[in-house]
Amino acid sequence: MKTIDVPSLGEITILENNYPNREYTIEIDVIEFSCLCPITGQPDFAQIIISYIPLKYLVELKSLKLYLQSYRNIGITHEDITNQIHDYLKKKLKPKQLNITSIFNIRGGIKTSIYVKYNSVL
Amino acid sequence: MKTIDVPSLGEITILENNYPNREYTIEIDVIEFSCLCPITGQPDFAQIIISYIPLKYLVELKSLKLYLQSYRNIGITHEDITNQIHDYLKKKLKPKQLNITSIFNIRGGIKTSIYVKYNSVL
Amino acid sequence: MKTIDVPSLGEITILENNYPNREYTIEIDVIEFSCLCPITGQPDFAQIIISYIPLKYLVELKSLKLYLQSYRNIGITHEDITNQIHDYLKKKLKPKQLNITSIFNIRGGIKTSIYVKYNSVL
Amino acid sequence: MKTIDVPSLGEITILENNYPNREYTIEIDVIEFSCLCPITGQPDFAQIIISYIPLKYLVELKSLKLYLQSYRNIGITHEDITNQIHDYLKKKLKPKQLNITSIFNIRGGIKTSIYVKYNSVL
Amino acid sequence: MKTIDVPSLGEITILENNYPNREYTIEIDVIEFSCLCPITGQPDFAQIIISYIPLKYLVELKSLKLYLQSYRNIGITHEDITNQIHDYLKKKLKPKQLNITSIFNIRGGIKTSIYVKYNSVL
Amino acid sequence: MKTIDVPSLGEITILENNYPNREYTIEIDVIEFSCLCPITGQPDFAQIIISYIPLKYLVELKSLKLYLQSYRNIGITHEDITNQIHDYLKKKLKPKQLNITSIFNIRGGIKTSIYVKYNSVL
Amino acid sequence: MKTIDVPSLGEITILENNYPNREYTIEIDVIEFSCLCPITGQPDFAQIIISYIPLKYLVELKSLKLYLQSYRNIGITHEDITNQIHDYLKKKLKPKQLNITSIFNIRGGIKTSIYVKYNSVL
Amino acid sequence: MKTIDVPSLGEITILENNYPNREYTIEIDVIEFSCLCPITGQPDFAQIIISYIPLKYLVELKSLKLYLQSYRNIGITHEDITNQIHDYLKKKLKPKQLNITSIFNIRGGIKTSIYVKYNSVL
Amino acid sequence: MKTIDVPSLGEITILENNYPNREYTIEIDVIEFSCLCPITGQPDFAQIIISYIPLKYLVELKSLKLYLQSYRNIGITHEDITNQIHDYLKKKLKPKQLNITSIFNIRGGIKTSIYVKYNSVL
Amino acid sequence: MKTIDVPSLGEITILENNYPNREYTIEIDVIEFSCLCPITGQPDFAQIIISYIPLKYLVELKSLKLYLQSYRNIGITHEDITNQIHDYLKKKLKPKQLNITSIFNIRGGIKTSIYVKYNSVL
Repeated sequence: MKTIDVPSLGEITILENNYPNREYTIEIDVIEFSCLCPITGQPDFAQIIISYIPLKYLVELKSLKLYLQSYRNIGITHEDITNQIHDYLKKKLKPKQLNITSIFNIRGGIKTSIYVKYNSVL
Repeated sequence: MKTIDVPSLGEITILENNYPNREYTIEIDVIEFSCLCPITGQPDFAQIIISYIPLKYLVELKSLKLYLQSYRNIGITHEDITNQIHDYLKKKLKPKQLNITSIFNIRGGIKTSIYVKYNSVL
Repeated sequence: MKTIDVPSLGEITILENNYPNREYTIEIDVIEFSCLCPITGQPDFAQIIISYIPLKYLVELKSLKLYLQSYRNIGITHEDITNQIHDYLKKKLKPKQLNITSIFNIRGGIKTSIYVKYNSVL
Repeated sequence: MKTIDVPSLGEITILENNYPNREYTIEIDVIEFSCLCPITGQPDFAQIIISYIPLKYLVELKSLKLYLQSYRNIGITHEDITNQIHDYLKKKLKPKQLNITSIFNIRGGIKTSIYVKYNSVL
Repeated sequence: MKTIDVPSLGEITILENNYPNREYTIEIDVIEFSCLCPITGQPDFAQIIISYIPLKYLVELKSLKLYLQSYRNIGITHEDITNQIHDYLKKKLKPKQLNITSIFNIRGGIKTSIYVKYNSVL
Repeated sequence: MKTIDVPSLGEITILENNYPNREYTIEIDVIEFSCLCPITGQPDFAQIIISYIPLKYLVELKSLKLYLQSYRNIGITHEDITNQIHDYLKKKLKPKQLNITSIFNIRGGIKTSIYVKYNSVL
Repeated sequence: MKTIDVPSLGEITILENNYPNREYTIEIDVIEFSCLCPITGQPDFAQIIISYIPLKYLVELKSLKLYLQSYRNIGITHEDITNQIHDYLKKKLKPKQLNITSIFNIRGGIKTSIYVKYNSVL
Repeated sequence: MKTIDVPSLGEITILENNYPNREYTIEIDVIEFSCLCPITGQPDFAQIIISYIPLKYLVELKSLKLYLQSYRNIGITHEDITNQIHDYLKKKLKPKQLNITSIFNIRGGIKTSIYVKYNSVL
Repeated sequence: MKTIDVPSLGEITILENNYPNREYTIEIDVIEFSCLCPITGQPDFAQIIISYIPLKYLVELKSLKLYLQSYRNIGITHEDITNQIHDYLKKKLKPKQLNITSIFNIRGGIKTSIYVKYNSVL
Repeated sequence: MKTIDVPSLGEITILENNYPNREYTIEIDVIEFSCLCPITGQPDFAQIIISYIPLKYLVELKSLKLYLQSYRNIGITHEDITNQIHDYLKKKLKPKQLNITSIFNIRGGIKTSIYVKYNSVL
């Protein structure tokens, strides 16, 4: 049984948007997200939905996957992880619009969802 | 209305909201809630849905679970429990917006739901 | 219209609303309602949905169940029973808003629903 | 258009509306309607949905059933039957509002629906 | 077990089976059955499914409906009503096979079903 | 049992089965069947499912439709109509196997189905 | 565009609308439509939905069926057939409003729908 | 295994089975069961399905509800509670057959079900 | 962005729109689209939905299928393929309105959709 | 953001089975399982269903959760992990029967399930 070592937090790769003058929408539905509970250290599982209108930049999907996987062994609250993904993508992509939704699996009979929205124009 | 012996209620833990200037929504769906009927002393079962827009504070989820569990052996009407949870969370979290929905299981062929809404701005 | 022997009707118990200054909604879905057809004397079955915004008073649920059960052996049209429940609850609860929907089971290939609405402000 | 031998039609029984000053809605869903095709003389089957806001009068449901059954051996087009039911009920009930929808079963791969609406105020 | 005042029960009408030498099955699904709880006197609601293979006799359906309606104000346990319907139909119809299933509505979070089967050959 | 004035019934047309040595199955689902209640004279509606394995003969479908339509104004019990269709088709088609199922619409909260089966080999 | 051997098209029969002063809607859902691909000559299958508000005239349904069947061996594009049906019905019926929707079956992994709308007032 | 303070358990009421010579089945589906985790003291929620063939005795349903409610504040494993209910009912009812299924709500991403079966003849 | 061995792309065939003065909509749902990942060279699968209001020109469907198939061995990002199809069709068809939606299959637990819209009037 | 350290492989806690002479079944459905791909080091997600008939021992559920969580950062094939869980539980629990099913999430359009069964008697 081969053990693998844990990389420091991945960075997303930025692609140039070849259609910067067009308002169009990209929706990325991450079905398999997992991080740790900051209090108990036990795994949390969530679905993360990223929706954005790009300006100059796009996120490359494989690097996004690796970036999100880098949270796998990090203890973090539901609210912080959702806002953190939001801020990181906002900083990197400088999009026109960006919405992040996270839907966490049931814990102790409780299911939690977080909704963060951003619009560069408002 | 006969009250049943009431244990001191658990207190929720308040977390600092690391994103106080952002309007975002947290929805907490409590699938397993149980208290007692104030008249017969028999168990009632409900689903409680809490949705809020935080300002300075967040509720820590495990403490919320324990707070709600502290009603387990308390006799209380559907209306009072829904409003009580509402007022307690409003006082503790001082949120921008707070909605509580409770959906009680069928009793004697009757299913009851209560909807309480709060908006600090209106 | 032949009336069938009518027992004195049960009375609902009124509870004080502990949150009279808050506009909130109570929805009561009565899955098992039965009265008699005023013409044939045979049983009718219906679902009755009561939705109201209280002011000073709440209806106690067990007494509501008994009040509705008191129609069990009374012959009454679909329209009258729906309006009668409406008027009785309006008089007793003096609510801000009150809607009654009754959905009667199929008779002779015909399914009938009645919708009565009341808003104290309009 | 060949007419088939037409029995005299049943008449509905009118009931007094005990709540003439209240605007409320009665929806009657007739699942089993059958008449004849005026051209081939073969049976047509339809669902007829009657929805009205009464003023002084209500239709008694059993007499409505018998009235609709009286079309069983009459040859009539989809459009005429729908308008005829509409006009008859409008004349008899003098309602505030009246909508008739008829949904005829598939014939030769074609399904036909007719929608007739009336509002005394417009 | 407290019994509530019991009206004399309706009797079913027996029809001659015109096909006594053929083994065929009749399934009667009674969606609206209601009797009283023998302990609390409050209404119980159930679905009763009757399935039988006739020999000489058939049950006439309207009389069956009236027979079942005669339980409306009788206090009786779920087990007794199911067996009683079974025995009465067995005695009256002398069928080759007879199965009764009763499915009672939820009471206090509990749903109860009773299955009684009879085969004249076994 | 009151019989209602009975028109002479239509006859089905028999077609030769071009594959008499092959055991294959034909299922005919008659969605629109209507006859009259022999007691009240009011319309009954049913679905009739005919399934057979032919030997020498097939039923021509348009003639089957007309044959079944000829019951439209005949008063007959659910059991008799099902057995009568069965016997008529058995006599005419002399099939290897023949099953008739009739599923009648709800009347007074009761839904009735009849199952008649025939196998020439058993 | 290659045309294939085109039979003279059927004509619809016009019926007088007995309710010319009433605005009501007729929806005709043609589940079985078939024409040919103008390029390959192979059958295309579609659902055609016709919805109109009549003025003086109605379309007789059997003639409509025959009219639509006359396209069976005609090679025509999806766009042309939809517009052609539209123009023909508009010319013949002179309706107040007319909408045609055609939904063609999958061909080579592609499903195509066409929406044509007409309003005499706009 | 830490036990939590255990109230004396309710006792079920035994009713005489009026049909002791008949093999029939009673299925009781308890949708609202709750006890405590013996390790953490936190509430567990389950559905308990009881199915039995009686001999001399029946369980009275209200007393069964109260008996099951008496576990509300008792810490007990999933396996023990399922077997304990089984043994208690077997001892009290001395049934011909008895099956208990318990289906516990998700805890930490794990859902657990226990199946216990008994047959007096085998 | 690494490009893989790119065949010359197919060209769509333009048909004249026989109804250029009418605003109508054509929706083309391409259920089977496949290209290559520009990074790994592995197949991507997507659904592409094209919706447009034509002016002078229509796209011929078979040539559209071939045009889309010409991407089969081309490595291209989700964003570029969606915009490229959009720009190509806009240039060729000069439509009044054009919307392209692409929905890519799950890769590494991530499902991606792109929405591009164009309106010649805005 | 607090990082947590990775424990060496957890061990399950064994509980004594209080009903060793009874054949009963325990089914444990682990909805959230995650390990790493031994080749790419990337996360795999699966559902693991454990079903067993105990003899002397039971698995304590929280320790089972922790044991399964200990695979979180281990690279292992689908086949090996399923067999490894099987062998470990068989060795520890010495059950009468043990079945393990693992259902892995889609990777590159491929979904994989593994079924391992054990019966001590066969």
